[in-house]
Amino acid sequence: MLQMEEAVDLLCAQVQTIQETEEVELLAALGRLLGEDCVAQQDQPPFPRSPLDGYAVRGADTASASPEHPVRLRVVGKLFAGGMFDGTVGPGEAVRIMTGAPIPKGADTVIRQEDTDYGIEAVFLYSSSLPYQNYCPAGEDYKKGDILLEKGTVLNGAAVSVLAGAGRQRVRVLRRPRIAVISTGDEVLQPGTPLTAGKIYDSNRFYVTSRLMELNCPPVASLHCGDDAEALAEEIRRLAPSTELILTIGGVSVGEKDILHRTLELLGAERLFWRLAVKPGSPTLAARFGSTLLLCLSGNPFGAAVHFELLARPVLARLTGNPRLTMKRERKLLRDGYPKGAKMRRFLRGCVQGDAVRLAQGNQAAGALSAMAHADCLLELPAQPTGFPAGKEVWVYLL
Amino acid sequence: MLQMEEAVDLLCAQVQTIQETEEVELLAALGRLLGEDCVAQQDQPPFPRSPLDGYAVRGADTASASPEHPVRLRVVGKLFAGGMFDGTVGPGEAVRIMTGAPIPKGADTVIRQEDTDYGIEAVFLYSSSLPYQNYCPAGEDYKKGDILLEKGTVLNGAAVSVLAGAGRQRVRVLRRPRIAVISTGDEVLQPGTPLTAGKIYDSNRFYVTSRLMELNCPPVASLHCGDDAEALAEEIRRLAPSTELILTIGGVSVGEKDILHRTLELLGAERLFWRLAVKPGSPTLAARFGSTLLLCLSGNPFGAAVHFELLARPVLARLTGNPRLTMKRERKLLRDGYPKGAKMRRFLRGCVQGDAVRLAQGNQAAGALSAMAHADCLLELPAQPTGFPAGKEVWVYLL
Repeated sequence: MLQMEEAVDLLCAQVQTIQETEEVELLAALGRLLGEDCVAQQDQPPFPRSPLDGYAVRGADTASASPEHPVRLRVVGKLFAGGMFDGTVGPGEAVRIMTGAPIPKGADTVIRQEDTDYGIEAVFLYSSSLPYQNYCPAGEDYKKGDILLEKGTVLNGAAVSVLAGAGRQRVRVLRRPRIAVISTGDEVLQPGTPLTAGKIYDSNRFYVTSRLMELNCPPVASLHCGDDAEALAEEIRRLAPSTELILTIGGVSVGEKDILHRTLELLGAERLFWRLAVKPGSPTLAARFGSTLLLCLSGNPFGAAVHFELLARPVLARLTGNPRLTMKRERKLLRDGYPKGAKMRRFLRGCVQGDAVRLAQGNQAAGALSAMAHADCLLELPAQPTGFPAGKEVWVYLL
Repeated sequence: MLQMEEAVDLLCAQVQTIQETEEVELLAALGRLLGEDCVAQQDQPPFPRSPLDGYAVRGADTASASPEHPVRLRVVGKLFAGGMFDGTVGPGEAVRIMTGAPIPKGADTVIRQEDTDYGIEAVFLYSSSLPYQNYCPAGEDYKKGDILLEKGTVLNGAAVSVLAGAGRQRVRVLRRPRIAVISTGDEVLQPGTPLTAGKIYDSNRFYVTSRLMELNCPPVASLHCGDDAEALAEEIRRLAPSTELILTIGGVSVGEKDILHRTLELLGAERLFWRLAVKPGSPTLAARFGSTLLLCLSGNPFGAAVHFELLARPVLARLTGNPRLTMKRERKLLRDGYPKGAKMRRFLRGCVQGDAVRLAQGNQAAGALSAMAHADCLLELPAQPTGFPAGKEVWVYLL
């Protein structure tokens, strides 16, 4: 059977990183990937500015100033942040200036107001300053032409504020991948409808849909389809031209109602693989239909979750060009043992505790999902015949 | 001057955790906090079900079955997932059954199809099974009446899918805090407008607004106000009745246009503190107006960012009841030195590298924001007169 790493390579080889971009309002770009190098259109700050409230002067005029021997300068203007002084500060002159205001021509430093007599017509300075002290030069943060953020950067809050500071109201971002989610199965009811005999509620579609939302790749469609290979093929035919990835859940095993096999036949889709050496969820099936990748997960809730995290996320990373969408893995000491052996690697739900990891509380059975809500990682037990002892290192995949 | 920890305590004492709830569509609840204990309305699964494709039988009937001596049973029905078998499986009888289908009355185990001749009228079984092997009991995941998720749980994707599996189409969540953001300053232009002499673009409002969005507390209003104490007081009067927290940026220092002092006077707001022993951004001001907390940050971009992270986040944690909104801090080795001493603690932008931390590339000046986009932590240098040497441990606050 195929190993997970081989499956990931096969899947990622089927998709290309999206290069198309679109322009959005700045705040709507939060969490998106920048679609262009953001080049500064002006120096930041655009002008030399005062870092404090005081008097803008020529440093040379202040050289001898001290509390005992203050220097007296003529105040020729007053400047608030946002204002401009039209003239030039000459020798013997000062301009009253507030934090953030542009330092006027002629002046090369600022004496803070606490070191003056706060004079209005004339001011006594009690301290000296060298030229370009207390002076924020134009371009202190960055210069016109600098690349502020590179194409592909994930736009977090700080990056958004840098773009705002550079004057950007709209920004070009990479188009998101277009993904559809289809859960299958006649036994599957949608939440909010009455539960009837033999049925269960659809949790899988909500797992995959909300995980895609959390990973900033919300699906363009999320729907349910009964056990009808024709109808499912029709849905896939309809969705494929406008999606790069269709994730289905259920119907991939060997039973008579495992309709995905027949669905792929009806579509004439090219099968990439079926069944991985990964428990739970091993019957995962993948195919290519036109330019759309079909990743068909098992209907077993924890199995679907594991294969989504291990297989779909690298595909998302490749589609978006954002490597952080793949799970990070680390070696940690597993404090608990696990009684069941398996011929293949088995994934369990875990909770990280520093350098160690514990099994998540609750049922670890493949059909049980509720323990997933309390887990912060998946942990991997190697194939082994007789169960896994406590106190050994395992790979931990951070959710 | 007040220490940061004292300021946090003062601020948090002013607000109470929001208890009001609202009902939203399940997928809209992603990232929200559950507003009720979610109690299971039925067992999960609701019925005993088959974990595989095969034949539902009485275990006792299979005791002697082996490849050499197969047991022959009469097939009395066929059952797919979602279906029901009305009768009872008697001795000598079997029901063809698919994964996920309810195990019929009378049967207590399932023989997988690979261990049979796939018979239609009658089936030969080549292996035996004990009762309740290959049998998922009703309530295997959870039982009716179990608390699946407790009030206050952050609803991640897995939690949403657990709620879906329990049949919930809508869910009660805690109301979000209502927060307004107001940037101030005549020198501040909105992005997208032409840059004129002496002006800069508003980055601070976008920092605070987008950080609130990232922390799942999007503001209900985000606006700019010029240096006009009357106009600002009017905005605060208008917003306060429908907000728990108003964050302003700028105008808190000692200059003539530092209008926040006058604004608070006009409002008759109760000042909680002014100025913290934290660089940069130290002139932070806090007040209470009616039942609304006013947190007034310095206009210095990095100062505003530091005080937002250090002061506003604990307030958000308190308002929402989600302690994870406060920054986690860890001791790490700072590989770089920093030349400037300071009479108070100084925060810098850093990048975590395993157990160590480095200064973020780019300008660390308080007025420079762009380095923030490349940082993943704030790091704290203690008050010290002469600069900080490389290779010492510091507190690191993870962004």
